[in-house]
Amino acid sequence: MNGNFTFYNPTKIYFGKDSISNLKNELLNYGKNILLVYGGGSIKRTGIYDKVISILKEVDKNIFELSNVLPNPLYSKVLEGARMVRDNSIDLILAVGGGSVIDCSKGISASSYCLDEDPYQKYWINQKPVDTKVVPVASILTMAGTGSEMNGGSVITNEDLKLKKGRVFGPNLYPKFSILDPTYTLTVSEYQMKSGIFDTLSHLMEQYFSGNDENVSDYLIEGLMRSLISNAKVACKDPQNYQARSNIMWIATLALNTLVGLGKTQDWEVHSIEHQLGAYTNCAHGMGLAAISIPYYKFVYKYGLDKFAQFATNVWMINPDKLSKEELAIKGLDALENFIKDCGMVTSIKELGTTKDMLKDIADSCDLGGGYYTLTHEDILKILESCF
Amino acid sequence: MNGNFTFYNPTKIYFGKDSISNLKNELLNYGKNILLVYGGGSIKRTGIYDKVISILKEVDKNIFELSNVLPNPLYSKVLEGARMVRDNSIDLILAVGGGSVIDCSKGISASSYCLDEDPYQKYWINQKPVDTKVVPVASILTMAGTGSEMNGGSVITNEDLKLKKGRVFGPNLYPKFSILDPTYTLTVSEYQMKSGIFDTLSHLMEQYFSGNDENVSDYLIEGLMRSLISNAKVACKDPQNYQARSNIMWIATLALNTLVGLGKTQDWEVHSIEHQLGAYTNCAHGMGLAAISIPYYKFVYKYGLDKFAQFATNVWMINPDKLSKEELAIKGLDALENFIKDCGMVTSIKELGTTKDMLKDIADSCDLGGGYYTLTHEDILKILESCF
Repeated sequence: MNGNFTFYNPTKIYFGKDSISNLKNELLNYGKNILLVYGGGSIKRTGIYDKVISILKEVDKNIFELSNVLPNPLYSKVLEGARMVRDNSIDLILAVGGGSVIDCSKGISASSYCLDEDPYQKYWINQKPVDTKVVPVASILTMAGTGSEMNGGSVITNEDLKLKKGRVFGPNLYPKFSILDPTYTLTVSEYQMKSGIFDTLSHLMEQYFSGNDENVSDYLIEGLMRSLISNAKVACKDPQNYQARSNIMWIATLALNTLVGLGKTQDWEVHSIEHQLGAYTNCAHGMGLAAISIPYYKFVYKYGLDKFAQFATNVWMINPDKLSKEELAIKGLDALENFIKDCGMVTSIKELGTTKDMLKDIADSCDLGGGYYTLTHEDILKILESCF
Repeated sequence: MNGNFTFYNPTKIYFGKDSISNLKNELLNYGKNILLVYGGGSIKRTGIYDKVISILKEVDKNIFELSNVLPNPLYSKVLEGARMVRDNSIDLILAVGGGSVIDCSKGISASSYCLDEDPYQKYWINQKPVDTKVVPVASILTMAGTGSEMNGGSVITNEDLKLKKGRVFGPNLYPKFSILDPTYTLTVSEYQMKSGIFDTLSHLMEQYFSGNDENVSDYLIEGLMRSLISNAKVACKDPQNYQARSNIMWIATLALNTLVGLGKTQDWEVHSIEHQLGAYTNCAHGMGLAAISIPYYKFVYKYGLDKFAQFATNVWMINPDKLSKEELAIKGLDALENFIKDCGMVTSIKELGTTKDMLKDIADSCDLGGGYYTLTHEDILKILESCF
């Protein structure tokens, strides 16, 4: 690699069956007031809620609860949580759920002590450094995909502005610890499991499809993509397969804990487009990415032909003999498309509730970027039309 | 993967050309008394010493120096440093050098406040938890290979006991920060560069050749091995190639920062044998590993045939068509042997100063372990004889 980087990831991971047994000891490091953040109530059905509450009571914590954090978490929820933190001198925000719950918790942490400044404008739009007190966040993960359990990112939808923006905060907003028990992911719906798998694959591809130098990070990404594809095929046929779900859970974390993108330029345009799709349709994030990816990569591959050919041989194991780079690149994208279809992921944004009249507004509201080619708003409109 | 694990790696990495520019700011986090630990003086020839001293003076630190830490660092040096730390109330131990200097610094840190207890007996032999004050360690790396810059390990030779034992301490002995500038590795001798490359490859193989479940960690290891082999071939022909040396430096760190062995059983027998070889001959660690590896793996491969066949196809890209697993496994080990020879690494322990009369003593002093097969002392003697 030719690039420089700084790497610092202080999240402690407890991984495996019954890893919640580590919660009690970790809680001893924090004060009495805990804000428990969770989603629509599935943790009550699965018994995780009762387990967590009983551990919190065992160590004599005061429990405050913020529930109903939904997919594509809303800024209004961040503000509600931030007021609870400020008003109750919360010592630790404990997120129990998937990426939405953890993202919301980081947003709450950053916003709690600057509520007079409009945190969305300050952090998500203007990307200012965090300069007020933050409250430690920890997580108990119940769905694999976003990687939020081991990074400092937070994607929040502002419903008034119709914007879904991501913000990368520094290491003081990384979860202090995250508990990853693959058995917790076994109760997630197959639709959500598949959405999480594609979200993970997309994180890997978006870090991969950029740059031309020989970089060890690309080898790591190829290894993770191969492992993900192999385990996803198993999980899509047999969702209760622990080994496959366990690998998928850890791959999802590694795909976005900043490690595999070190020293590389990156291309986050698929996420940028999907975020605006999500702001307009509230679709499942990974399914939005699946629907956009093939049209997007077919639009840009010719500008990064070497890398797309490498993707075909090193990830999809396509024999390059007698093929031109162009043919090889196309075969790689065909293999990706077949994977999407075989797994039963979404291939059209129409299925996700998008209507034709939304397309121009979505396209015009996207940030512009790219790895081998930088899109215009007109390009995005064309891509959206071809995945309709 | 089926295994559980805990992962916590709090070392901050500054990587790339001129990354020493981050030293000044980091030093502001520590007290006034700095113990600078380094080796035989090469950092004075290369100018790194002057650079570090000038930065330490800029931030007004009191500088204490422990020099002449040699390869296979000695326990007597650890004790000398530990007394300096205790007598001068050292606030930060700054290691400038390769793995030996960093390992010695961690040993000093752990030993400083328990000098009345014989730290070697306590930590390296009896593997007790660290229960006295430790002093923060940081590193500026000048040679790639050991991975000591991002882990809590410390291998120390006790010259009186003729033992070279490794100890893995907890995260409070991980370097607080490590500065990795690949240009610093360009002045290392080719012999030492090659030794470091094989040390890295050995770390990867020793985590790889164990276990039978499908585990994402194995995919990461395969990616790192492929990248290492590719960049080593470039570096052995053109040692001044920055891109290759940069990749090699980061691969060496990743190979032993505990990440790629997560959820896996592991086989550290080659290191165990080499450590005793080192205790008797003081040979370059990586070259000792290179000389032992082929006889060792040829001795054990038949007990883990599936994995050795996978090594051949996924690391050395050998076409498995029409080959039995046995043939494939052998072809993989032949490819490894050719790599060792092509790079000009050592293939006989005789070249490393071993004499025939040492072999039994070395074999009898080794710890016994293994991945797919557990050696006896007699097995080790046979292996040593066949790499003589």
